[in-house]
Amino acid sequence: MSQAKSYAAKSATTPLEPFSFERRTLREDDINIDILYCGVCHSDIHIAESDWGPSIYPVVPGHEIIGRVTEIGNKVSKYKVGDLVGVGCMVDSCQHCSQCEADLEQYCDNGSVGTYGFKDLIDGSITYGGYSDHIVVREKFVLSIPQALDASKAAPLLCAGVTTYSPLRHHGVKAGDKVGVLGMGGLGHMGVKFAKAFGAEVTIFTRSESKVAEAKLQGADHVVVSTDEAQMKASVMSFDYLLDTIPVQHDLNPYLNCLKVDGTHILVGLIEPIEPAVHAANLVLKRRVLTGSLIGGIAETQEVLDFCAKHDIECDAEMISIQDINQAYQRMKQGDVKYRFIIDMKSLKNS
Amino acid sequence: MSQAKSYAAKSATTPLEPFSFERRTLREDDINIDILYCGVCHSDIHIAESDWGPSIYPVVPGHEIIGRVTEIGNKVSKYKVGDLVGVGCMVDSCQHCSQCEADLEQYCDNGSVGTYGFKDLIDGSITYGGYSDHIVVREKFVLSIPQALDASKAAPLLCAGVTTYSPLRHHGVKAGDKVGVLGMGGLGHMGVKFAKAFGAEVTIFTRSESKVAEAKLQGADHVVVSTDEAQMKASVMSFDYLLDTIPVQHDLNPYLNCLKVDGTHILVGLIEPIEPAVHAANLVLKRRVLTGSLIGGIAETQEVLDFCAKHDIECDAEMISIQDINQAYQRMKQGDVKYRFIIDMKSLKNS
Repeated sequence: MSQAKSYAAKSATTPLEPFSFERRTLREDDINIDILYCGVCHSDIHIAESDWGPSIYPVVPGHEIIGRVTEIGNKVSKYKVGDLVGVGCMVDSCQHCSQCEADLEQYCDNGSVGTYGFKDLIDGSITYGGYSDHIVVREKFVLSIPQALDASKAAPLLCAGVTTYSPLRHHGVKAGDKVGVLGMGGLGHMGVKFAKAFGAEVTIFTRSESKVAEAKLQGADHVVVSTDEAQMKASVMSFDYLLDTIPVQHDLNPYLNCLKVDGTHILVGLIEPIEPAVHAANLVLKRRVLTGSLIGGIAETQEVLDFCAKHDIECDAEMISIQDINQAYQRMKQGDVKYRFIIDMKSLKNS
Repeated sequence: MSQAKSYAAKSATTPLEPFSFERRTLREDDINIDILYCGVCHSDIHIAESDWGPSIYPVVPGHEIIGRVTEIGNKVSKYKVGDLVGVGCMVDSCQHCSQCEADLEQYCDNGSVGTYGFKDLIDGSITYGGYSDHIVVREKFVLSIPQALDASKAAPLLCAGVTTYSPLRHHGVKAGDKVGVLGMGGLGHMGVKFAKAFGAEVTIFTRSESKVAEAKLQGADHVVVSTDEAQMKASVMSFDYLLDTIPVQHDLNPYLNCLKVDGTHILVGLIEPIEPAVHAANLVLKRRVLTGSLIGGIAETQEVLDFCAKHDIECDAEMISIQDINQAYQRMKQGDVKYRFIIDMKSLKNS
């Protein structure tokens, strides 16, 4: 066992505060990682505040973890002490169902184990995430960080990155496709980068005229202001894919209408439930598809990291200290972040 | 011009009654068809009663038409007088958009012309359907009825048949797939026949224990009583495809949960809007697909007819006289039909 320092939410309504706990003694296939950086995901807020049902407190959020290996179990073969590694949204899964066998651990039939707030499959302890000084994770769920990546900016690729990369790949987005990206936050801005890298013609949909210039800076070929009726009307039947990263309930119908026949609307947010109601006619009369996608498997997460290293793609991020986390949550709720906060975990030493 | 006898709805609230009107003089690519049989589709009721928005009255319903060619325009090459032919849900489309060019006239970018209640593209007259003694239709939208089919039972293949065949083909349903069919009416029972013919293992979902024996008679391998919580629970994560033919609003969530990862829920009914609301988690957490499908193109409708002739598939139907049409509508509303009414149009001569 090793003592860990962290920041935790002790209830749904109290701010995050320093919290000490014990990390487990390394199992034979475990790796101990000294955490250097941790991205701040919207899910961190949702779970800290029990937005998705009652969380198990204390919650130590953080599932975009970059760190260095400090110790390995005696059966670990893939990593050695000193390696730069990452941990994303999952730290375990059953490894024997058809999903796990297909490298789709995120859809594990027996339920994958989230990096925080889930029960460890072996000892039943609650997992604590990356807002901490170190973490112990099963080798299989540890990613290798390519040298070409800037370690201080790589963290969000482990969640925001793979969450947008995976569905675009799964649906075969390719050169010439017209892709709309809904929402321009941590996920949306990565979706634009990937869709562009895959050769698509990319349009950002944003509610605000004031974000048009910024959307162009993000590399979008076009921008549609979704509150402008004329612009939305001009977009009807235009898109092959819509990647919907909007994290709050919204009316899908005007967007579905922007899809061509056989077009696909991909949800990556848990907007519960889908209201206003979807009109069946928007699906039936044009054979459109409404679907969702959840992060990505471990092999695909590695693929994202390697792809970003090769294509020089990185997340736009603002570095913060762990002491600023509650303020960062407030700013995220107001949409005041370009586009991801990353915690420099050195700051935890001072708390 | 030629005088036509028919049955028509003169308003949303009055029963169908005899109605005379003029069919257009044959254009060079038109065919005149003496109608022998006309299937009765749920859409006939919806449009007669303005369920989908105000219809243009009088409405002469009927888009499952079997008849014999009595006259051809001077540029008609595919059919000759005496041929047994069919007309389905469409009688025209633009013929130059990408959908029409892909044999997907039902998704025509400029709007296909329905067999009744739509405006003719050339003269703007309102189309009148198959509850009539003859019909004039553009050659391109006329189907050839294979000799091996029983003409008196073939009519429903032109709508109920292609509506269920098309999505199963489009999504590539194949041997070994697990397919659930929701609803056991005119569409549902055809869906079972096609899914079985494609080699799938087929389950009928029905609300009523009393329909289990009948569902087995229809060829289903299994039956799930959807009102039985234990049976629904045992079906979770079991299906590759659900073909949803339920014609009224219903909660999709329990059915979505019956799909495996990457499973597909196909709506063929315009259940407006989709309420209760769909839970995004049911899509996102298992990468499931919710989609719809609208009838089928002309080439595919011919494919259905040929497939049914080859595989000895026919619709289970009850023959009625046109004078019984209002009673038939009442019985359909009560679900009291196995599984399609077909009007013997000889009866119209007596009205």
